[in-house]
Amino acid sequence: MKQPESFVKAALLTWAGNLKRLNAIFNGMTDDEMLAEVAPGKNRAVYLLGHLTAVNDRMLPLLGFGDREFPQLDSIFITSPDKAVKDLPPIQELRAQWIVGNELLARHFSSLTPDQWLERHTQVSEEDFAKEPHRNKFSVLLSRTSHLAYHTGQLVLLKK
Amino acid sequence: MKQPESFVKAALLTWAGNLKRLNAIFNGMTDDEMLAEVAPGKNRAVYLLGHLTAVNDRMLPLLGFGDREFPQLDSIFITSPDKAVKDLPPIQELRAQWIVGNELLARHFSSLTPDQWLERHTQVSEEDFAKEPHRNKFSVLLSRTSHLAYHTGQLVLLKK
Repeated sequence: MKQPESFVKAALLTWAGNLKRLNAIFNGMTDDEMLAEVAPGKNRAVYLLGHLTAVNDRMLPLLGFGDREFPQLDSIFITSPDKAVKDLPPIQELRAQWIVGNELLARHFSSLTPDQWLERHTQVSEEDFAKEPHRNKFSVLLSRTSHLAYHTGQLVLLKK
Repeated sequence: MKQPESFVKAALLTWAGNLKRLNAIFNGMTDDEMLAEVAPGKNRAVYLLGHLTAVNDRMLPLLGFGDREFPQLDSIFITSPDKAVKDLPPIQELRAQWIVGNELLARHFSSLTPDQWLERHTQVSEEDFAKEPHRNKFSVLLSRTSHLAYHTGQLVLLKK
């Protein structure tokens, strides 16, 4: 394997490993258990499921992969805090979107060459990117990988 | 900047960004506030401070940078759960070790070439590494970067 591919592979394995851990948590919880708050007064597991799906979904346009799959999630799970929106989508639907969205991302991720990973993401202009070349797609992947871990740390607090 | 350097730079920026967020949290808490549990019955902030320092410190031998600085932390903050050890080191001492340890790591990190980041870490044999070349130093960096985010997600639950 050539050197640049090795860096990309390491990052994709870390992403996939963090997703695997989250899947084990979500799959190990009943729909009722998903209504528990990770700490008193904090986000419920179901909110974090929708939130993670929405944030991951935003990577589609951000990385130039195409349009959003689930833009309707944002108003419930990103721009509103938990419990602000009374009627959530059914948990089974959220679980399915989580899986579908991550499979779609995985396919797009694997299609990028190392050079493409170092291209600018769509929220930075060519002008700014010339000055700040670290604002590339690879950095977005690393940052979203940390985002998965961040909420995993919260969800494990629900373990009996 | 050449391509391999760009991947390393992105990873080091993500590591530094996650550390910065943790520093803001720890610096914003009084020593008394550090005794709060992140959720009822879960780890206290002071335990997570010692735990993160110990896990980061383990990267010194793991990445071939040299001996541990704070091996004495392991029995309190890694192999024992929180509250199992009655007398913790003074919080001020833990705060100082956290800073010193991270500065030391930053110096070592910046000394590695991209090729060196792709070398095996010290816990994998040459034989296994030939079969599993993803078990390199870069993967350790990514995994420990997620580890920072994981516990950050817990510590933010203490925010008023």
